[in-house]
Amino acid sequence: MSSHFGHQFRISTFGESHGGGVGVIVDGCPPRIPLSVEEIQLELDRRRPGQSRLTTPRQEADRAEILSGVFEGQTLGTSIGILVRNSDARPQAYEDMKDTFRPSHADYTYEAKYGVRNWQGGGRASARETIGRVAAGAIARKVLATAGMGAITGWVSSVRDIHADVDPVAVDRAAVEAGPTRCPDPQAAEKMIEAIDAARRDGDSLGGVVTCVAHGVPPGLGEPVFDKLDADLAKAMLSLPACKGFEIGSGFAGTLLSGLAHNDAFYAEGDRVRTRTNRSGGVQGGISNGEALVLRAAFKPTATIRQAQETVNRDLESRQLEAQGRHDPCVLPRAVPMVEAMVALVICDHWLRQKSITD
Amino acid sequence: MSSHFGHQFRISTFGESHGGGVGVIVDGCPPRIPLSVEEIQLELDRRRPGQSRLTTPRQEADRAEILSGVFEGQTLGTSIGILVRNSDARPQAYEDMKDTFRPSHADYTYEAKYGVRNWQGGGRASARETIGRVAAGAIARKVLATAGMGAITGWVSSVRDIHADVDPVAVDRAAVEAGPTRCPDPQAAEKMIEAIDAARRDGDSLGGVVTCVAHGVPPGLGEPVFDKLDADLAKAMLSLPACKGFEIGSGFAGTLLSGLAHNDAFYAEGDRVRTRTNRSGGVQGGISNGEALVLRAAFKPTATIRQAQETVNRDLESRQLEAQGRHDPCVLPRAVPMVEAMVALVICDHWLRQKSITD
Amino acid sequence: MSSHFGHQFRISTFGESHGGGVGVIVDGCPPRIPLSVEEIQLELDRRRPGQSRLTTPRQEADRAEILSGVFEGQTLGTSIGILVRNSDARPQAYEDMKDTFRPSHADYTYEAKYGVRNWQGGGRASARETIGRVAAGAIARKVLATAGMGAITGWVSSVRDIHADVDPVAVDRAAVEAGPTRCPDPQAAEKMIEAIDAARRDGDSLGGVVTCVAHGVPPGLGEPVFDKLDADLAKAMLSLPACKGFEIGSGFAGTLLSGLAHNDAFYAEGDRVRTRTNRSGGVQGGISNGEALVLRAAFKPTATIRQAQETVNRDLESRQLEAQGRHDPCVLPRAVPMVEAMVALVICDHWLRQKSITD
Amino acid sequence: MSSHFGHQFRISTFGESHGGGVGVIVDGCPPRIPLSVEEIQLELDRRRPGQSRLTTPRQEADRAEILSGVFEGQTLGTSIGILVRNSDARPQAYEDMKDTFRPSHADYTYEAKYGVRNWQGGGRASARETIGRVAAGAIARKVLATAGMGAITGWVSSVRDIHADVDPVAVDRAAVEAGPTRCPDPQAAEKMIEAIDAARRDGDSLGGVVTCVAHGVPPGLGEPVFDKLDADLAKAMLSLPACKGFEIGSGFAGTLLSGLAHNDAFYAEGDRVRTRTNRSGGVQGGISNGEALVLRAAFKPTATIRQAQETVNRDLESRQLEAQGRHDPCVLPRAVPMVEAMVALVICDHWLRQKSITD
Repeated sequence: MSSHFGHQFRISTFGESHGGGVGVIVDGCPPRIPLSVEEIQLELDRRRPGQSRLTTPRQEADRAEILSGVFEGQTLGTSIGILVRNSDARPQAYEDMKDTFRPSHADYTYEAKYGVRNWQGGGRASARETIGRVAAGAIARKVLATAGMGAITGWVSSVRDIHADVDPVAVDRAAVEAGPTRCPDPQAAEKMIEAIDAARRDGDSLGGVVTCVAHGVPPGLGEPVFDKLDADLAKAMLSLPACKGFEIGSGFAGTLLSGLAHNDAFYAEGDRVRTRTNRSGGVQGGISNGEALVLRAAFKPTATIRQAQETVNRDLESRQLEAQGRHDPCVLPRAVPMVEAMVALVICDHWLRQKSITD
Repeated sequence: MSSHFGHQFRISTFGESHGGGVGVIVDGCPPRIPLSVEEIQLELDRRRPGQSRLTTPRQEADRAEILSGVFEGQTLGTSIGILVRNSDARPQAYEDMKDTFRPSHADYTYEAKYGVRNWQGGGRASARETIGRVAAGAIARKVLATAGMGAITGWVSSVRDIHADVDPVAVDRAAVEAGPTRCPDPQAAEKMIEAIDAARRDGDSLGGVVTCVAHGVPPGLGEPVFDKLDADLAKAMLSLPACKGFEIGSGFAGTLLSGLAHNDAFYAEGDRVRTRTNRSGGVQGGISNGEALVLRAAFKPTATIRQAQETVNRDLESRQLEAQGRHDPCVLPRAVPMVEAMVALVICDHWLRQKSITD
Repeated sequence: MSSHFGHQFRISTFGESHGGGVGVIVDGCPPRIPLSVEEIQLELDRRRPGQSRLTTPRQEADRAEILSGVFEGQTLGTSIGILVRNSDARPQAYEDMKDTFRPSHADYTYEAKYGVRNWQGGGRASARETIGRVAAGAIARKVLATAGMGAITGWVSSVRDIHADVDPVAVDRAAVEAGPTRCPDPQAAEKMIEAIDAARRDGDSLGGVVTCVAHGVPPGLGEPVFDKLDADLAKAMLSLPACKGFEIGSGFAGTLLSGLAHNDAFYAEGDRVRTRTNRSGGVQGGISNGEALVLRAAFKPTATIRQAQETVNRDLESRQLEAQGRHDPCVLPRAVPMVEAMVALVICDHWLRQKSITD
Repeated sequence: MSSHFGHQFRISTFGESHGGGVGVIVDGCPPRIPLSVEEIQLELDRRRPGQSRLTTPRQEADRAEILSGVFEGQTLGTSIGILVRNSDARPQAYEDMKDTFRPSHADYTYEAKYGVRNWQGGGRASARETIGRVAAGAIARKVLATAGMGAITGWVSSVRDIHADVDPVAVDRAAVEAGPTRCPDPQAAEKMIEAIDAARRDGDSLGGVVTCVAHGVPPGLGEPVFDKLDADLAKAMLSLPACKGFEIGSGFAGTLLSGLAHNDAFYAEGDRVRTRTNRSGGVQGGISNGEALVLRAAFKPTATIRQAQETVNRDLESRQLEAQGRHDPCVLPRAVPMVEAMVALVICDHWLRQKSITD
């Protein structure tokens, strides 16, 4: 079940960085949702490499083909198959990594787990694997939009120690897409570009944080006690390559407050129950409360760097490694559509689950 | 599926804070594991209320009864049923919360989701629900110990801004259990006690962080791409009441480093591949690498406080609420066995999954 | 996952024939369904031993206790825990079966699978395990009734070669419950009683077939391609002890007809699409078509007999076995509530699944 | 989850009879299993249309492409993606079925369930959907063969009232593949051909039974109480298009025997426990006992016939229908590889599950 995600809106992915292609099966999508391949392509284009000088120079058109499940512009309710071919694969560039484990990559652990690995560019552990997620996320977003839910907007809120100064609930996609960093704070964005350019020159890399807000999530989504909305979001984030941390609402900073300072007071706004503050991040007891869902995901600096590193090979011999494959000096801008896709998948899954018990 | 957790070692829980009792079914436990009810009771005793003055005065013996799945001191391989009766239930104490939503509790969201709720003491959202997890976790620990795996040790690493100064891989249970805070740094522990006592006097509450280390986890556990070991751990942590954040290894702090500084260099130690540093936290590409598993979980300050708070009732009328139910001014000490249990459940599940593909 | 059944309305069971008790957790039950323990008890009473001279003399009151999930007479939407204590356990009666495998029982296979078994009366393979299913089925029936669905009626349609001559869609519970055989054809019922009495006198046993009809199932239930309604029903039936065959609609006899003779012509009845015949048994392409669901389940003659039988012990030594434990000479009458419960569980599960994709 | 099957060896399928293609993702396959596309193609060639005059004249090369999960001739342990393009699609041939429901097809029920359907040739309900299953089954067979398990052999044991007279445990693939009927009894095969030819001439169709035997299944496979080996086999069979019945071992005929006549006596053969007879069909208490697994699946006569039939259209108007699409007068010969594939998938899944609890 390692390539499956979701309970009611369920995706299964396949594919490695090199080989015939990558893709996804989306199962449980409601029928009669208008859907075009262009809507999927739009999100894939935000994820694909080579978008700007900030990302890996690998060129992949990443053109999606819908193989099934959509007929005359509408979903059928049956499983949707999507395929994206690999095109700019240069496996020979990875030849010297065949036997040598790249530090902080998944080379060693895949070897330890499976006794074999596709050493061409990261194989299944490559970020190319997220193509299927982003394609499926585009469908989930369409389902949610059709149901009247609001936007899911992610952005780069920090790169290293450079932080965006924005009001989370006010950020919209236009501001995010205004520049190559996907940071909606222009001043911070400029500093981030400088830092990323410097890291590239140094053959080094940077990490950072993506913040994501989902608007218009109705109260009641999330299944206690294990499939809490925030628990599934945490899993979704940590399942992304390079993600090392997750917060919902106040997160770690919330531990510095007392209960009195932290609690979100309730008040009535028309026929809605609202909270004065949103330290809960839109989730209480694992269930959405109708406030904006606010989460943060930490991405470590890219493991691939162009500097000499100490490592070992499969025979446990000491080796010096200098990475040569193409890489992103900072994955954060491309992580944004991945984060959004996973958030959309989780919300969509829980929305369908909730429908099954609603009158 | 909301009350199920795990794929191969799977638990299902039931029970509310008030009612006949709480419990768990453990399914997929290997046969012929020596198991006594005392081993389960030991962990429940660490979780139960009334252990010390730091915790809620609610008195519950929390005696576990094994109903099935264990025969002549050994597991049978079939499902294990465990029941713990509720005894010190005082539902009338919650009468005035019947219609009024306690801020930052799950009262409102349960009402929004289900249109009904057991308003007696939190119902299913109560921390009493974790009894089944802790009981199941005790079994998972026994399975892992039988397989030769090392200790799983959690502790309170911070309360508000008071941080324990310890070497994570050196902390053992004796140091953790030495005092009521479950903080292995005696100086910090003392300050924590003062802070918690002050919070109790003020009718306020505190949050903090639990750190947990799992020793002796073999390389190869974790199922890419969605059921990564750290993804399942993140879900496990966020499924605990009051948890708002999760980190594996370097976590959010790791985003401040460059790739060169962050990468964990490999070296050989005998026939083992080791890393010089452990910023990965024992997981690379979602799979354990044989280093100590190191994770952190943030718990917000307890929502129940004895201070007046603004809220609304079910009719959306404005209300002032003063909490009167018994409560923990700081859940952190009791969260330790919960964290450990969830970590044990995740590792055990992945260990069994890995066995199915190993020669 | 061996003790779990269902996707959206999911049950987990525990318990052996001897030990603390048996029970079930029902997860995914919609909230605000009126439910009393008496409704559950009613079905358990139909299943329990000692109802009539046709069944095993084992005396078990089989009193159900609802431990959670029901509050003030309504379901809460959270997991429902139900416990039934074992009372008339006489493990010593099975002492001589500790090492010897009873033919066509599960003694040998449990030993082969787990390397250990609870040899007291069948352990987990005992028909007592179905108590949890019947209790959960009673809840599923209540959910379906609340949704306006019709009756689910099973009956003994044959014992050995004695067949009931009835119109399947006209059978109602009153006719079924009129006698101890649960065969609604009085002439056949009389012959069945004679045959069962004779089998008991001979220390032998009989098998037969249970037919079950579900009325008022709306069109659209069933999830192609694997979770077809009839596929899940087949699994449900074969998961019952002693079941060796399953048919939906025309079943095996349908293979004797040509397509022209077998096809069910469509016609319109008001705003409903109906079929002239119902060889499909209410399911086409794995999805309900609105006609009565008609299925049959074959139960082999009870393996426990009071005659000498050839067998081996755990040391592979040849042994003669004479069964001495209490037993049913014919399980068919008690199988009826089990079949109905499983049918109710499957329909309820699919009804909830369908709701998640319906506007 | 409707397009998913299996717990540990899990497949997900996509695709309709017309559209870009059909395929499967196989998840949970152990690593380092030698696998070539030719091994998959071999089974697809047995399933594909146009093999002989007995089957539909639709021409499809059904060439499989492995998109991922296999590297240098070995499985990687990660998900295997397989694609088969649709080539001879003639959707216009189905134009007049756009609004009219074909009797005993899934047209009406898909419409009732989803409110939309791909009316071109059956869409998702087409037997083309089984391509993914057969491809996945070929991989499962390879896994089982690598583990030393014996052959899985299916054959046409009856067409209408023409029965093969063979010893089930002695049938091998050579005898099955000797003729276009896949009936290993040459006399019966000849009569079957005549009957099928006559049915074709009459524009009619025939059904029948496939028997399948799995050799060398070790004792201990199957997970009580719900995921019994025979319960999962029953689901697997009933999930196949046109299947209406399932039997394991003695099946319905077993209900005619008394317990004494039906029980399988145990004896020792070397270090193996054997049974004198095999009325259990290789499964006792839901767990394999080491004897040959023997099951039967009933397939109704093909619903597509070239004769006038009464039906209605989407507006509930009465219509006469004459089928014009290409079809099989008898699906039985092509059902054999489908049955074998599903049996292989179930056994492989349970074999991996059993490994997780074995020392």
